[in-house]
Amino acid sequence: MASAAETTGESVAETVARLARAGREAQRALAAMSSEARAGALRHAATALRDAETTVLAANAEDCAAGAANGLSSAMLDRLRLDPARLAAIADAIAAIAELPDPVGEIIDRRQRPNGLVLERVRIPVGLIGIVYESRPNVTADAAALCVRAGNAALLRGGSEAARSNRAIHAALVEGLVAGGVPADAVQLVPTQDRAAVGAMLQAAGLIDMIVPRGGKGLVARVQAEARVPVLAHLEGINHTYIHAAADPAKARAIVLNAKMRRPGVCGATETLLVDATYPDPHGLLEPLLEAGCELRGDARARAIDPRILPAGANDWDSEYLDAVLSVAVVDGLDQALAHIAAHGSQHTEAIVTEDADAAERFLREVDSAIVMHNASTQFADGGEFGLGAEIGIATGRLHARGPVALEGLTTYKWLVRGAGQIRP
Amino acid sequence: MASAAETTGESVAETVARLARAGREAQRALAAMSSEARAGALRHAATALRDAETTVLAANAEDCAAGAANGLSSAMLDRLRLDPARLAAIADAIAAIAELPDPVGEIIDRRQRPNGLVLERVRIPVGLIGIVYESRPNVTADAAALCVRAGNAALLRGGSEAARSNRAIHAALVEGLVAGGVPADAVQLVPTQDRAAVGAMLQAAGLIDMIVPRGGKGLVARVQAEARVPVLAHLEGINHTYIHAAADPAKARAIVLNAKMRRPGVCGATETLLVDATYPDPHGLLEPLLEAGCELRGDARARAIDPRILPAGANDWDSEYLDAVLSVAVVDGLDQALAHIAAHGSQHTEAIVTEDADAAERFLREVDSAIVMHNASTQFADGGEFGLGAEIGIATGRLHARGPVALEGLTTYKWLVRGAGQIRP
Repeated sequence: MASAAETTGESVAETVARLARAGREAQRALAAMSSEARAGALRHAATALRDAETTVLAANAEDCAAGAANGLSSAMLDRLRLDPARLAAIADAIAAIAELPDPVGEIIDRRQRPNGLVLERVRIPVGLIGIVYESRPNVTADAAALCVRAGNAALLRGGSEAARSNRAIHAALVEGLVAGGVPADAVQLVPTQDRAAVGAMLQAAGLIDMIVPRGGKGLVARVQAEARVPVLAHLEGINHTYIHAAADPAKARAIVLNAKMRRPGVCGATETLLVDATYPDPHGLLEPLLEAGCELRGDARARAIDPRILPAGANDWDSEYLDAVLSVAVVDGLDQALAHIAAHGSQHTEAIVTEDADAAERFLREVDSAIVMHNASTQFADGGEFGLGAEIGIATGRLHARGPVALEGLTTYKWLVRGAGQIRP
Repeated sequence: MASAAETTGESVAETVARLARAGREAQRALAAMSSEARAGALRHAATALRDAETTVLAANAEDCAAGAANGLSSAMLDRLRLDPARLAAIADAIAAIAELPDPVGEIIDRRQRPNGLVLERVRIPVGLIGIVYESRPNVTADAAALCVRAGNAALLRGGSEAARSNRAIHAALVEGLVAGGVPADAVQLVPTQDRAAVGAMLQAAGLIDMIVPRGGKGLVARVQAEARVPVLAHLEGINHTYIHAAADPAKARAIVLNAKMRRPGVCGATETLLVDATYPDPHGLLEPLLEAGCELRGDARARAIDPRILPAGANDWDSEYLDAVLSVAVVDGLDQALAHIAAHGSQHTEAIVTEDADAAERFLREVDSAIVMHNASTQFADGGEFGLGAEIGIATGRLHARGPVALEGLTTYKWLVRGAGQIRP
């Protein structure tokens, strides 16, 4: 497919602006549709994607062949590759999103004034959402479906490695959505692979309402540095698990092993373990990690627990390893744990393991992260695990509000998770 | 008072960063205080400000004298000037903010997962809030008090015309807050009047959590253009009142006159009147405005209603007059009214006047503004009138969310106001 720029002489920025204006127009129509009509259109989209299996897998095979020829790593090729089972799972995810309750129209609060005015706050769509992502073609479908379910238009910009796959998936989605009455421009794919298109999206304040980057730290950092449009994202998950003096040793062992090693590469993985100096069983805590092949990097007191622990450098306390590596510090009580987290955390997810209810409540109250847990694995940081059905990403930004902004508008929220030792299977 | 930069050789950016770090540290302590302790500290601050009357009024007299010598306009001098009654009102406002319910700690929702995990979302402070404002010294007290009530630290940067007044008010506030147990750095005033300090605040992503500009369009536009920190603001209030075919003429006359002329210079004032072509009494609608001295600028059909209406230029549909000037367009039905608002509105406040419930509901649903009203004056767009006690500003931005973001995080909200012809006294 030739880009508009190639055929019309339009600049990349002009192409992005034109697509964004068309997306905004389509979003107005989408928002005026009933919730059931939007859900029905997503069911059509899921069916259309299943029906397009041959086309999508052929396009994907071309992407994979080109990627292999261009020397993509095996990890990147695996993220790129689709097969019948993976494609069916993508279609199933769209169908599942269609069945999620629609937040649009929900009345958040209602008040009557002494003069008889009745005030309500209701949820409305954000508007046009730009999604900038890398090699996973499933994002094309997932992100578009989440946007449409909540009445938002989507402007998608995927990675060049997956360009053929994305075009094939996008074509099937749009065919299904249109059959369900959604305007074609409600979900658009930026047609040019020119990197300037991402820059143009990031600068499109007033045309694009929000940008969601989906990809590695390099992509998110670029988006956060350049964007004039609000960004929903997290840069890093430097997550801490704190083993309090009153932790139950069996829970602590299971939680820490799961929090690091279940999938070391996810953003909810624990990256730093804080062990209280008076915790009675530090060796039993670390032994299963070492046995599982986890590299431990500790401060001097941590290294005294086990000789296999390597010395931690100054950077280790600020590192998101996304690998089977864990930094370990020994702390003197809750205050020192809180201070360490305040100094080194990334406000993503932190957990305390303890049987002391007062210590747990103080940790839940004072840790300033988007997610704070008690007696549970940080790997639960996930929209599906939270019962939200699906997620567009995890955001560590703080809240905006609108309308007359008073005290409530000066606040934001965090998730508190109260557990009893659960680990994620 | 010499600025830190003048005495230490520190750059302006370094000064702002140092203040911001101190503010963040103080905010952690403030957030750990009980709600009642924060309220008590604000009562102390109100008392301290009353006790400092002589000092504050003397400083203000110096500012006013310097302003007059520097040729400030009489309007600006009036905004700058304090007297015993105005200062008492400022102290009363602080005391009133102390009595407002504290949103911090409020549980927004709660769910239990099949695995026994219990999830809650609770409100927390935003963090360190930067306030950038112009010549009104009352902002120093109002904004600081609102921030502190919700557990936020404030970094204040007022206009140079009010520098002495702001320093005197700030000193009194901090004396009272400290007496109430709040760390002194919870409310800081940027000590230098160097304009680069504003730029440094706007760039301080990661140090300042949110910027609130309080002032004219020039200030807000600069803040929105330069800020790397999220901004809570509105640039303009190009507000529309639409008189539907089925409007009650008596309500319509009273609402429109109030919406424009009660205070033409506030952001909630109506700037464009849309009159349905089939509305039965257009002349009776416009006559009271003309009698009250309002200049009307209309399209060809509006001008046919009354010869005193001037021709509107192309810019009039996109102008926030903030004055006794109103643009008037005749529209053919609700669709055309909605299209005009979508094309020219600023997503601040729009109103429909009608006795047709279906038309009203469609207007409330389809107008994409922060505030949408039925049968009420747009001048009600105000936190006090909404029963919020006070406001830090009116925001037209769209929402961010945090934690695992799913459908709900893809939505934002608007205020719906249902009335029966109320006008603001």
